[in-house]
Amino acid sequence: MAYNLLKGKKGIIFGALNEQSIAWKVAQRAVQEGAEIVLSNAPIALRMGELNKLAEECNAPVIGADVTNGDDINNLFTKTMEHFGGKVDFILHSIGMSVNVRKNIPYFENNYEFTHKGFDISALSLHRILQAAMKHDAINEWGSVLALSYIAAQRYFPGYNDMADNKAVLESIARNFGYEYGMAKKVRVNTISQSPTRTTAGSGVKGFDGFIEFAEKMSPLGNADADQCADYCVTMFSDLTKMVTMQNLFHDGGFSFTGVTQAVIDQMGK
Amino acid sequence: MAYNLLKGKKGIIFGALNEQSIAWKVAQRAVQEGAEIVLSNAPIALRMGELNKLAEECNAPVIGADVTNGDDINNLFTKTMEHFGGKVDFILHSIGMSVNVRKNIPYFENNYEFTHKGFDISALSLHRILQAAMKHDAINEWGSVLALSYIAAQRYFPGYNDMADNKAVLESIARNFGYEYGMAKKVRVNTISQSPTRTTAGSGVKGFDGFIEFAEKMSPLGNADADQCADYCVTMFSDLTKMVTMQNLFHDGGFSFTGVTQAVIDQMGK
Amino acid sequence: MAYNLLKGKKGIIFGALNEQSIAWKVAQRAVQEGAEIVLSNAPIALRMGELNKLAEECNAPVIGADVTNGDDINNLFTKTMEHFGGKVDFILHSIGMSVNVRKNIPYFENNYEFTHKGFDISALSLHRILQAAMKHDAINEWGSVLALSYIAAQRYFPGYNDMADNKAVLESIARNFGYEYGMAKKVRVNTISQSPTRTTAGSGVKGFDGFIEFAEKMSPLGNADADQCADYCVTMFSDLTKMVTMQNLFHDGGFSFTGVTQAVIDQMGK
Amino acid sequence: MAYNLLKGKKGIIFGALNEQSIAWKVAQRAVQEGAEIVLSNAPIALRMGELNKLAEECNAPVIGADVTNGDDINNLFTKTMEHFGGKVDFILHSIGMSVNVRKNIPYFENNYEFTHKGFDISALSLHRILQAAMKHDAINEWGSVLALSYIAAQRYFPGYNDMADNKAVLESIARNFGYEYGMAKKVRVNTISQSPTRTTAGSGVKGFDGFIEFAEKMSPLGNADADQCADYCVTMFSDLTKMVTMQNLFHDGGFSFTGVTQAVIDQMGK
Repeated sequence: MAYNLLKGKKGIIFGALNEQSIAWKVAQRAVQEGAEIVLSNAPIALRMGELNKLAEECNAPVIGADVTNGDDINNLFTKTMEHFGGKVDFILHSIGMSVNVRKNIPYFENNYEFTHKGFDISALSLHRILQAAMKHDAINEWGSVLALSYIAAQRYFPGYNDMADNKAVLESIARNFGYEYGMAKKVRVNTISQSPTRTTAGSGVKGFDGFIEFAEKMSPLGNADADQCADYCVTMFSDLTKMVTMQNLFHDGGFSFTGVTQAVIDQMGK
Repeated sequence: MAYNLLKGKKGIIFGALNEQSIAWKVAQRAVQEGAEIVLSNAPIALRMGELNKLAEECNAPVIGADVTNGDDINNLFTKTMEHFGGKVDFILHSIGMSVNVRKNIPYFENNYEFTHKGFDISALSLHRILQAAMKHDAINEWGSVLALSYIAAQRYFPGYNDMADNKAVLESIARNFGYEYGMAKKVRVNTISQSPTRTTAGSGVKGFDGFIEFAEKMSPLGNADADQCADYCVTMFSDLTKMVTMQNLFHDGGFSFTGVTQAVIDQMGK
Repeated sequence: MAYNLLKGKKGIIFGALNEQSIAWKVAQRAVQEGAEIVLSNAPIALRMGELNKLAEECNAPVIGADVTNGDDINNLFTKTMEHFGGKVDFILHSIGMSVNVRKNIPYFENNYEFTHKGFDISALSLHRILQAAMKHDAINEWGSVLALSYIAAQRYFPGYNDMADNKAVLESIARNFGYEYGMAKKVRVNTISQSPTRTTAGSGVKGFDGFIEFAEKMSPLGNADADQCADYCVTMFSDLTKMVTMQNLFHDGGFSFTGVTQAVIDQMGK
Repeated sequence: MAYNLLKGKKGIIFGALNEQSIAWKVAQRAVQEGAEIVLSNAPIALRMGELNKLAEECNAPVIGADVTNGDDINNLFTKTMEHFGGKVDFILHSIGMSVNVRKNIPYFENNYEFTHKGFDISALSLHRILQAAMKHDAINEWGSVLALSYIAAQRYFPGYNDMADNKAVLESIARNFGYEYGMAKKVRVNTISQSPTRTTAGSGVKGFDGFIEFAEKMSPLGNADADQCADYCVTMFSDLTKMVTMQNLFHDGGFSFTGVTQAVIDQMGK
């Protein structure tokens, strides 16, 4: 079902890797709602080739960018603005990677080069994108920027490791840059804190299946899936949510405010 | 601009008093988006007569109900379900009143009969409505219930008095009933914490103009108005936000996460 | 081990029922730390007779008061100030009761007379005590008022029922009155959100054992017990925490910021 | 006034620079309460020479350490354990620095080398210290680690710049490591979110005087000063707060939960 919620709007979607990716679904839904988009991802992700399928389906150019590289990001904005003949209205940041997680290094034995790298890719990249966007004056007034987060920014989850810290600072950057960009150009910046989702990135977290199952049992509506997340993103990109900014929005079937469910307590007794 | 976001949906709007009311705007926007609605308010509010104008415009029946009276609420659900020939999909609770506020009684001299009355009308009414809705099985699966709140539920604001406590418990009821109704019927319950808004209710708070001006200066996007609130409500009633429940959603131009702005600091120096 | 942290200080302890009560432990610890105290509880609690044992041990008068009755509270402050020949320095509010909980009435079938009664006893009582204290000018500058709360004020817990709403409003009252009393007399007001504790009150909550066991498994340090709570209260009554006010302080072994533990996830898999 | 709260305890204090430093006051208070301490700071800070005065007063060795350097931190723990002939009971982390702040670079023009450096010194240093402590098994069971934070971790403050993000991740690290160290050795980790304080570090933030004045007017008890912060730290190092962990504790005279005061609103009208 489509509503033309994004008719005439233009956007950049970072982080679509394959059909499981939330960013993939957001790209499809945005186009379905009338938007034109540009797709971006890291060079290494582009080489995997699946993104071309989405690009064709969405009639969208793919412009690669290493989000830890200022030149790449500048190039992305220059080319995007050339492509659209103007500014964009929305941006999705769905980017995250931790070497400590990938290598199963416990939190209390973290390698700090890996920590810096994860911080750069997963969190600082949002700042880099917004700073470049502002420099290029690349976002229309009342534009909307979203980054995907996870509740590990607020509470400890085993195995989530330094990605928890990265999400905390990602949300902080959204807040702080949300203020600056709001004052300057009425651009709003928010994060969506999504249920654990079975994506390629998610599956990299050790014990992720346990997470998902627990979250499912702890959420009165169950876990939110990638399609539902795309629906929610579309409302946040639309003109109907203009005054929402600097927020972290839980999209999780009620997990965040459920202390415990009867189902979990029953399981404890077994 | 309309998107048919609520096409085929049916709802009940509590608390429209006059054109300034947020509930009035929500009623108009819901209908514009394709919904059919029933309007309800307290008998005393109905007698003021303005609601009929809205009822005509929205082609909606008005069914009075004192929300502190179980029989009234039962009658409302019975008649509403007769009218629609079935269940509803959304409910707006925009109800609040404090006698302590009206009479300018300081918080530390509150009259407890007034406190109980305000609690009953402003907060417990949400519980009563949800309990009756559940008993009547009056809400379709994935239905959406919204109540309007204010950030005084989290932080002290002078003059807001016992309404602050009422909003705190209103948000708690949304959370707790959100769990119960989510488990039972996939119904979601949320509150929207709105910028101070120049409505008849708002104007009852002493020093309200000072509030509004301060909030305006403290929000990077300025205060959200009633029309924008109606837009936001519409997204929350739609199928695009199905997995959002038990949340308190700030709709305030960034006020809630702004510690201070330069404009306010500058004013301090004067 | 005692430190003379409360030497020369005077206080009122509400809610000691028997040796399991947190208030009982706080009374003992306060006296151990050099304080003089007055004990208060509801007439029905006094009739059970155990409080006399504590009164003797602490060399403290017992002054009964129904905390929903203004005259009783006024009488308590008058007599307390006579007894001490002056003002008090600290107050503990450890009071809570829900008829809906006692009668095992589900949250979605609550009886609203019971709800009002529980609200009055469990939450509004804090307001009544503070309002009376202010009227009698019964608290010294930099005095400290504590009320015991539970994390159900923030998140849903099955069976906790309308006590969740009562705790939410209790914390709101602490915040709002904390502001007023802070401005007027530098008196600070805080709540301590304690681990589930096996007291007479706690045991009234259906499925409480499940709660406790789950919380124990979800807290890196395990559940905080009543003795540890008393220790914490003593620091909050002391002069070392003068600038802490309007806060809700979690005393729970880390439960509040633990999303899930490996122990719980392992149990899920069984 | 001293209570022997830390009698027999041993600790490390990071970050005392001069008499204005909060860490300086904490060192003095800890010793006054019966503790033995080791002082540490960056080599460049040591060269300024004032720390020797404190060292003499506290009868404490000074062991320099660049907290971004693993070897330095390892050396610090080795020497500290030699000095004490055993483990420590508490650690204070009062460390923060942002080159972007120092150079008055606006948040939206941040230099990312500076950002990485500030992240390393201000936030990751807590992780490095805790990781090294765990490797050396340098903290006794029920030991207490505190880091000083600021409410910019939750809300935007002009001029606070990337230190806001650093404080957000600092609090996240306290939470995540608090879990790990709690599980492993019952060690607790918390942050204290202190009022803006006129220290050498604080004064580096542009417009800091405006901050302090605004915070003073927005706090019912006024701003907490460095001496009061030291008092609070002492309670958190003591055995009376054993079950408090993974928390961020506001020590701010009520600022954090005050939406606005009448004094500020009045000033707005001028």
